[in-house]
Amino acid sequence: MEETRKLAEFLSKTSYQDIPVSVRNHAKLCILDCLGVTIAGAREEMADLLVNFAQEMGGKEEATIIGKGVKTNVLLASLVNGALSHVLDFDDVHVPSATHPSVNVLPPTLAVAESKKLSGKDLLTAFILGFEAEARVGMAAGLTHYDRGWHSTATIGHFGAAAGVGKLLNLSSAQMVNALGMAGTQAAGIRQMFGTMCKPFHPGKAGMNGVIAAYLAAKGFTSTPDVIEGKGGFLEIYSDNPQPEKILAGLGEDYQVLATGFKVHASCRATHATIDGMKTIREEMGRVNIEDIEEIQLELPKITFQAAAKPEPITGLEGKFSVYYCAALALLEGAAGEDKFTGEKVNKPQLVALRKKVKANLNESLGVFEAKITVKMKDSKTYHRHILTPKGEPENPTNFAELEDKFKSLTVLVIPEKNVVQVVEKIKYLEEVTDLREIVALCHPVGRE
Amino acid sequence: MEETRKLAEFLSKTSYQDIPVSVRNHAKLCILDCLGVTIAGAREEMADLLVNFAQEMGGKEEATIIGKGVKTNVLLASLVNGALSHVLDFDDVHVPSATHPSVNVLPPTLAVAESKKLSGKDLLTAFILGFEAEARVGMAAGLTHYDRGWHSTATIGHFGAAAGVGKLLNLSSAQMVNALGMAGTQAAGIRQMFGTMCKPFHPGKAGMNGVIAAYLAAKGFTSTPDVIEGKGGFLEIYSDNPQPEKILAGLGEDYQVLATGFKVHASCRATHATIDGMKTIREEMGRVNIEDIEEIQLELPKITFQAAAKPEPITGLEGKFSVYYCAALALLEGAAGEDKFTGEKVNKPQLVALRKKVKANLNESLGVFEAKITVKMKDSKTYHRHILTPKGEPENPTNFAELEDKFKSLTVLVIPEKNVVQVVEKIKYLEEVTDLREIVALCHPVGRE
Repeated sequence: MEETRKLAEFLSKTSYQDIPVSVRNHAKLCILDCLGVTIAGAREEMADLLVNFAQEMGGKEEATIIGKGVKTNVLLASLVNGALSHVLDFDDVHVPSATHPSVNVLPPTLAVAESKKLSGKDLLTAFILGFEAEARVGMAAGLTHYDRGWHSTATIGHFGAAAGVGKLLNLSSAQMVNALGMAGTQAAGIRQMFGTMCKPFHPGKAGMNGVIAAYLAAKGFTSTPDVIEGKGGFLEIYSDNPQPEKILAGLGEDYQVLATGFKVHASCRATHATIDGMKTIREEMGRVNIEDIEEIQLELPKITFQAAAKPEPITGLEGKFSVYYCAALALLEGAAGEDKFTGEKVNKPQLVALRKKVKANLNESLGVFEAKITVKMKDSKTYHRHILTPKGEPENPTNFAELEDKFKSLTVLVIPEKNVVQVVEKIKYLEEVTDLREIVALCHPVGRE
Repeated sequence: MEETRKLAEFLSKTSYQDIPVSVRNHAKLCILDCLGVTIAGAREEMADLLVNFAQEMGGKEEATIIGKGVKTNVLLASLVNGALSHVLDFDDVHVPSATHPSVNVLPPTLAVAESKKLSGKDLLTAFILGFEAEARVGMAAGLTHYDRGWHSTATIGHFGAAAGVGKLLNLSSAQMVNALGMAGTQAAGIRQMFGTMCKPFHPGKAGMNGVIAAYLAAKGFTSTPDVIEGKGGFLEIYSDNPQPEKILAGLGEDYQVLATGFKVHASCRATHATIDGMKTIREEMGRVNIEDIEEIQLELPKITFQAAAKPEPITGLEGKFSVYYCAALALLEGAAGEDKFTGEKVNKPQLVALRKKVKANLNESLGVFEAKITVKMKDSKTYHRHILTPKGEPENPTNFAELEDKFKSLTVLVIPEKNVVQVVEKIKYLEEVTDLREIVALCHPVGRE
């Protein structure tokens, strides 16, 4: 009982100093990663549609559309940046809640922090607390929420965005309750939209709605006191099996941002264990000569066959969902970044030849994202790998340096190379940044810097 | 099957000339009524919070916050005007869908029409078609949608707003499908919020979201082809007992705007039959002398006791939910407009004295909103009335002149009196208005005209 009120009180009262250093440092990984995919997302067709819309609406020019260098108001910046952060499907994830809190929380908190000239500490605090709110409401809603057809990053994301922005606005506990209420009553987004522009639109919209919720709450707008747990509230209406106790259990001790998983490869998560394994075989093998390879055997769990078993990919996007292509790519090139998933690359004769040597077999005993790999050479030598958890999951963590590589590969095509390095440094020492506009200005694209 | 596509095609292809004159004329009643409650809503506390928010965001100044004379962009104008139109709970209703389409459709279509300098014919066409889309999706979702805790004017309102705005933007059928998809995936609003500012916020938010949907669809944003009827679509997720066949049955023949009910009194609908009856008794009685009245007996259905049986109201708002006060008011003053529901009025000694003579009894055989009235005089004379349907329901329709009275009583406190008359005339002959900015400018408040 009183979960909404107690969560709001925690959000309102927790300060930067209350948050352990390890949590703050982990949050920097999320921020670096999310900023990187957002900048890269600015190259997508959808970005221009959204920028065009924002410009048509106008607004106080106080927040930046990242990777575009276009200024607009915090509402529209949250909408556009949130959409761009999710458009590549390359952003981090909080598995226990089935949500991507970073893409809901970072875009609106960054926009508001920029508009108000706030500091790195302000952003870190708001990001961590917004993430916390989203992750916990998501865990309380449970996986049945997603199963029923809701896109949880869309629906639950409203709580993260409202909480994070509310924190930046210094909402009182009572105002935060109202902000959460307004988040809950705006929560929407259905999985039917997957495969259309509406999927990435969802987190942007949640961010925008979170801004509305927090700003109106700050002005005195009223809502109900128990939107999460109350009768007719979010959990009752949106979930078949709510577990409201997950809102408060360990609150302030078990920070959910620590449970983030990162995608270090640009393809479907179900291909990652294979890519990780092939990369280490490549190192062991030394020089890779396609003619010397007899066959590559993969044993994979069911989910990989459901999600990522396209046998003959043609487009870059299809390549992301082809474990055959991904296995060949990782062995031949040792990397699977965004630049490896173009039509040209996917159809490269060497990669096609190698991809045709890949045989994938179902092994129902394997866990989600697990993979067993055998590479048979013509001289009868074999290489084996068994990857239990792909790189990036909390059980097999990635570090700042590895995410830095990802950031650089994603952003170097959009913003000046010298800026890339500076952004990384500023996020590494985010607590020392006194005005976030320093970071945002470095993310302007070539020609607008 | 293909309800979404066929509805979109109807919306896209139907022109002003295709719509029967009787339908257009009826739509004028809705537009007059909705504009009146919006102007009056501008006096509420909430209006200032929302105007303040809109000004903080800024935006191209091309649409007006009605009753305030403040200009902003179409997004924020739709949000604010939609909220103001519903804040008095005095707006019209489409009972078969359990929605108030006017408050969802008029604010965004008026804002967009103003910004684009469109005509009365354009507005009428878009309003009627947006109303049609909302009413039909609402009927398809059925009453179980509302029963589950959804505020249907909030959720379903998204379809009305997107369709109406989409019509003004001349969306193709394919674009309209995308707009409806984006409407469906933004649909939110729960009844838990009733009694807070979020209730009127809901239709405003639906209007704003409808603008986003239609504008992005016009620019090429993509969505799914079957948001209404498809697997994982709106009806499957939001309704227990969907009847998708109601989307298309009689489409283009049975215009739903004709089924609008209007509130001619400013109180809860469950008091209206009593008010109607008392007004006619007043006429028969001639001079009303409280001392001559022995007792007023009301027989009322269950819903009146659930919704509007507050015995001793103190505030104006409580008066709206007191059938005792409403009965006394109608007998003594012959009217129950917004100005009759103030604290001063509710506590007026004469009205308190008369209200205490009212006895209300449950009669379970009565239909919703039915009332039987007996006024017993001390000289044994009695007056009887049996009201089956209050004035304003389609079965007991109100006319333009009666709604004109309501409009005048609501707006005269906000906008210059000479403008009130002009607005009414322009809506009466809306098809002759070539630029809607003429009407909007007349709605500027005193001091801003």
